Amino acid sequence: MELKGNVVIAQGGGPTAVINQSLVGAVLESRKFEQVGRVYGAVKGVEGIINENFIDLTQETTHNLELVAKTPSAALLSTRVKPDHAYCAEVFKMLKLHNVRYFFYIGGNDSSDTVRLVNDYAHSENYEFRAIHIPKTVDNDLVLNDHTPGYGSAARFVAQSFIGANLETRALGGIYIGVVMGRHAGFLTASAALGKKFSDDGPHLIYIPERAFDLENFTQDVRDVYKKYGRCVIAVSEGIVNAAGQPIASTLRKGVARDAHGNVELAGGQLGDMLVSHLKSTMNISRVRADTFGYLQRSFAGCVSDVDMHEAREVGEKAAHFAIWHNVDGSITINRTGDYAVDYKLVDLKEIAAKTRLMPDEYINPAGNNVTHAFLDYARPLVGSNMPKAQMLRAPYAKQLKND
Amino acid sequence: MELKGNVVIAQGGGPTAVINQSLVGAVLESRKFEQVGRVYGAVKGVEGIINENFIDLTQETTHNLELVAKTPSAALLSTRVKPDHAYCAEVFKMLKLHNVRYFFYIGGNDSSDTVRLVNDYAHSENYEFRAIHIPKTVDNDLVLNDHTPGYGSAARFVAQSFIGANLETRALGGIYIGVVMGRHAGFLTASAALGKKFSDDGPHLIYIPERAFDLENFTQDVRDVYKKYGRCVIAVSEGIVNAAGQPIASTLRKGVARDAHGNVELAGGQLGDMLVSHLKSTMNISRVRADTFGYLQRSFAGCVSDVDMHEAREVGEKAAHFAIWHNVDGSITINRTGDYAVDYKLVDLKEIAAKTRLMPDEYINPAGNNVTHAFLDYARPLVGSNMPKAQMLRAPYAKQLKND
Repeated sequence: MELKGNVVIAQGGGPTAVINQSLVGAVLESRKFEQVGRVYGAVKGVEGIINENFIDLTQETTHNLELVAKTPSAALLSTRVKPDHAYCAEVFKMLKLHNVRYFFYIGGNDSSDTVRLVNDYAHSENYEFRAIHIPKTVDNDLVLNDHTPGYGSAARFVAQSFIGANLETRALGGIYIGVVMGRHAGFLTASAALGKKFSDDGPHLIYIPERAFDLENFTQDVRDVYKKYGRCVIAVSEGIVNAAGQPIASTLRKGVARDAHGNVELAGGQLGDMLVSHLKSTMNISRVRADTFGYLQRSFAGCVSDVDMHEAREVGEKAAHFAIWHNVDGSITINRTGDYAVDYKLVDLKEIAAKTRLMPDEYINPAGNNVTHAFLDYARPLVGSNMPKAQMLRAPYAKQLKND
Repeated sequence: MELKGNVVIAQGGGPTAVINQSLVGAVLESRKFEQVGRVYGAVKGVEGIINENFIDLTQETTHNLELVAKTPSAALLSTRVKPDHAYCAEVFKMLKLHNVRYFFYIGGNDSSDTVRLVNDYAHSENYEFRAIHIPKTVDNDLVLNDHTPGYGSAARFVAQSFIGANLETRALGGIYIGVVMGRHAGFLTASAALGKKFSDDGPHLIYIPERAFDLENFTQDVRDVYKKYGRCVIAVSEGIVNAAGQPIASTLRKGVARDAHGNVELAGGQLGDMLVSHLKSTMNISRVRADTFGYLQRSFAGCVSDVDMHEAREVGEKAAHFAIWHNVDGSITINRTGDYAVDYKLVDLKEIAAKTRLMPDEYINPAGNNVTHAFLDYARPLVGSNMPKAQMLRAPYAKQLKND
């Protein structure tokens, strides 16, 4: 029998370039089903459910939805709230009050945990209910996924940034450090390598949280590259840790701030400045600069991977399919089925929640300061079509006359 | 009589997204003239001339030049050397040795000064010589120019960044500070406003070097915006100064680094961090973040204004026209002749050299914390076609049921 009722969609966690594609995919697809009454969007994630702030997306125009789909960040607004059991009970109560039978939550693994808890309440009350977690994270750190929507576009931004940084240091010399997002997983930082073309192109060194960061080894690495090329381009994850597992960024600060999830707030700017000071004083080079990519890498308007965009749309549509056609709960995962092709599966929510996928060893070089070809093969399709490519002059040098 | 001889082209100062368009425009156009023997590219600006490092661009393929034109940063590499009289005498000597009769230098006002000095040596030796300065600077600070090549693309990057930052704070709240390049001129920081669309869009506050920065006024401004919108997006130029004319960034540091031109090295990251700390402690808001756009805003591969790209190409071509057809020296300027249309004039080198154009008063609001519509009218055409546009959901809210 068809399960009749309303749909609630919400977005949680940090923005991505394509999270609104997933929203619009789920909304447009849900609106096609007869058994669906209203399609509500909860404003500010689970906060919007608790506060009954629902936008009636059944009354949104298709054209406007398509424009929203192309807009980065979360059109339904987002939240950093990490709901506990009591919060999820309240969420479920509100969903039930609004005769919601289908709940789609777009977010990272914190969000998938929320979906799981809410779904448990529905089960315990024998309330027929379908709950789907739609994956999203620029960190690419959800288990059982080949990759996650949002990663490809952020990776593209990071790669395009490093194409520029590489050309900048080729033109003017010096050392450049780009500090990239990634608390535990190095995928986004690793994507700095995706714009490399010529053999001397940077980034020459890549440091990720999966390998312990040692300041002495780092200094020697930079020395070696600088000696070879007269310049050095470095990608550093803001989440790099020392051998004891302490974030390098947090060891620099007096008071360590923590967010609502208990995560240490990583101060990328300070990490970059610290590494710059260190290299300036150790290597006696004045032209050492660090940029921290910050919000730009996840919010910049106008840098989107078409592959990422289409997949984000599809996971949204699939949420509606799985829940409404198939009457099943779970988290949607992206599975690679060809070179390059993907398909989507639904996995148990508890398989995704509160787990973090890290870069596999085969993507990291033995020295722990760069990526492998296996990583490049993995990530290249994800950044999409028409990546900018740098080109160099290659005409011959003219004869010198001074000493003739 | 036609002046027969070789051409030397060089690039100086910081990279832009379109400086190679000017290079390629000048090279391709110069190669058409019978009186031109070889078209040389000096590697690393004036350093390449002194060291006789000339690439023979007569032997570069047209296809490769077109690929180079689309590549950001300086394909001939660049230099931060600021030549004195003795250096320019040596430059002239080398140019004469290579039978160079046409010298094109692409750069900012420091580069125009170099062109002037070299040209003076040619005059004093009665050596027939044409020297043209081709404008380039993301800072948009050359006098007698409506705007300069490089600015439009950098402005587009800054505007697209702020579209994202605005959406980010709308979704998650808080205060965001973007620190933008600009030592003396606020044009690039002001361009943060070019992506605004809805009435509550940020940046809500814009601070530029043309107006004294006062920390108390700043704090009150932020308070007012935060009270109104529950969030605040701020664009700050890295070159902001206090009432005494001291850079805010430099007042924070113990040792102030200076570059080869005697300019204080602006530590944008530290400026951002300082403003964040200040606002966090004064306003008791935890979600305050700063990004410093750093190299990204001038080197990012794949964010180009088509208008800027075409104009950069044209100033390169015009350099060849002025020098070879018209036998005149000078600096090429961009002049606005319509809405939107430009034409190019040659002005005396000494009119450009070592002068800095600032934002005119009519582009700055009376409070000194934002731009005017006159600025938006001025700058909008420069960022080119197909700017990304953000869109919001506008469907009605659903009825709340809890208190029914």
